[in-house]
Amino acid sequence: MTSIELSDKIRDKRSFLCIGLDSEFGKIPEFLKQEKNPVFEFNKRIIDATAQYAVAYKPNIAFYEAYGVSGWVNLRMTVDYLRANYPDMFLIADAKRGDIGNTSKMYAKAFFDTVGFDAVTISPYMGEDSVKPFIGYKDKWAIILALTSNQGASTFQYTEDKYGGLMLFEKVINYSKNWGTTDNIMYVVGANRADMLKEVRRLAPEHFLLIPGVGAQGGSLSEIARAGMNSRCGLLVNSSRAIIFADSSENFAEAAAQKAEEMQLEMSSLLAEKGL
Amino acid sequence: MTSIELSDKIRDKRSFLCIGLDSEFGKIPEFLKQEKNPVFEFNKRIIDATAQYAVAYKPNIAFYEAYGVSGWVNLRMTVDYLRANYPDMFLIADAKRGDIGNTSKMYAKAFFDTVGFDAVTISPYMGEDSVKPFIGYKDKWAIILALTSNQGASTFQYTEDKYGGLMLFEKVINYSKNWGTTDNIMYVVGANRADMLKEVRRLAPEHFLLIPGVGAQGGSLSEIARAGMNSRCGLLVNSSRAIIFADSSENFAEAAAQKAEEMQLEMSSLLAEKGL
Repeated sequence: MTSIELSDKIRDKRSFLCIGLDSEFGKIPEFLKQEKNPVFEFNKRIIDATAQYAVAYKPNIAFYEAYGVSGWVNLRMTVDYLRANYPDMFLIADAKRGDIGNTSKMYAKAFFDTVGFDAVTISPYMGEDSVKPFIGYKDKWAIILALTSNQGASTFQYTEDKYGGLMLFEKVINYSKNWGTTDNIMYVVGANRADMLKEVRRLAPEHFLLIPGVGAQGGSLSEIARAGMNSRCGLLVNSSRAIIFADSSENFAEAAAQKAEEMQLEMSSLLAEKGL
Repeated sequence: MTSIELSDKIRDKRSFLCIGLDSEFGKIPEFLKQEKNPVFEFNKRIIDATAQYAVAYKPNIAFYEAYGVSGWVNLRMTVDYLRANYPDMFLIADAKRGDIGNTSKMYAKAFFDTVGFDAVTISPYMGEDSVKPFIGYKDKWAIILALTSNQGASTFQYTEDKYGGLMLFEKVINYSKNWGTTDNIMYVVGANRADMLKEVRRLAPEHFLLIPGVGAQGGSLSEIARAGMNSRCGLLVNSSRAIIFADSSENFAEAAAQKAEEMQLEMSSLLAEKGL
């Protein structure tokens, strides 16, 4: 998917919502735990209930990998279900991978060939050759961690470079934006760092940004949109737990749909405010 | 396993060799590809031929994950085989994971509970809460990337902090050594950066260091040992491709054993040189 196709979809659906499928087995409703593939059954119901409000889904791979082989079976089934039933959805593997070149190539193979994701999140610590294999695929994306939403993020990401004065997360953007294009590189910027979003936009005005941390982690949607939107939107805002675990009863899917709809309605207003 | 137990094993076996099971399906001998679980069959033969020369094995998870569910089956079989037949081996998941706290916890579960590794390699970019879940397990280790062996490593890892003057990889060590102890934190330091090893030793004199990049990536064993060994050795030196893909014929396991023995003999001399 190109950035123009993604922008068009956002405008058409009046939404830049990405739903995080952080589907921890321990947190899914009890009555589903008897199913053969409980996490897939949970995801399937969440997807069917929320797909009209979202443009992207983002399983965090840790919640699948924690269960080894069966976790990977449920992940694969989820992606196959999305591909078959919602073929125009943008699918992100939140994997935060990155290794030396010949090894990153195998991670790219895992997420782009073996499982059919559109994008993978990447940790930039190891530099260019750890990212390059992910952007060698047609219409696939590397989503590079710049500024994350967690408590410990500032310790290293705010390191101010003695030469040039940029903070590490800015240096990451400044270097890596030349490794690919606005059609194969995005950045992760935490929603609880809205004051930094303007700085990110200065360095990367045209790139898509993936914004986690809205909802359970406390970021505000309107602040993010006002600080980070560009002329084609350029944002994917993710919400995971606040949507998928909105309710733990048999009505969990309806509750998730309601939360997703609330966000979509707010997003529609924010797009209109921007003339989109 | 504690650091003293690991040190004792190194002294007893006269080896600080870690063998990297980067067992890419495409590179294993043709005659094994007909097996039901070819990568496991390859690993089993490599392990049986080389275990007497090594103290640790380190599968790089990318080479398994690239094949999705079947990759995870082969990984699990490999670890179970090692645990059953070589129970005192130190087993490292080279995964380079790291995420926000509740997610890192799931990766720790994946590698320590679901598959029985002793240690996981971690990318430090996201800071303390991304590392902490890995050191909350008794006798398990987080092996934090400090200075990696790949070409692009210097771009971000050599960033010099305006305040304090440390380079990023030094800052990573300086902060993270206080997150745990010498019994649950190690550092990755690339073998092709021997000049930097003395600086690492200044910051972390007692920590174990995992040194990749000997062999195929070009680092010299004797230089590494002389710059990085402490009074209890404190090194695990990894070799992957130079051992496991030494030969692609039916004699691949014997060829691997020969390469591993050569390294072990050199290590034995280097230990003796240090009075160990």
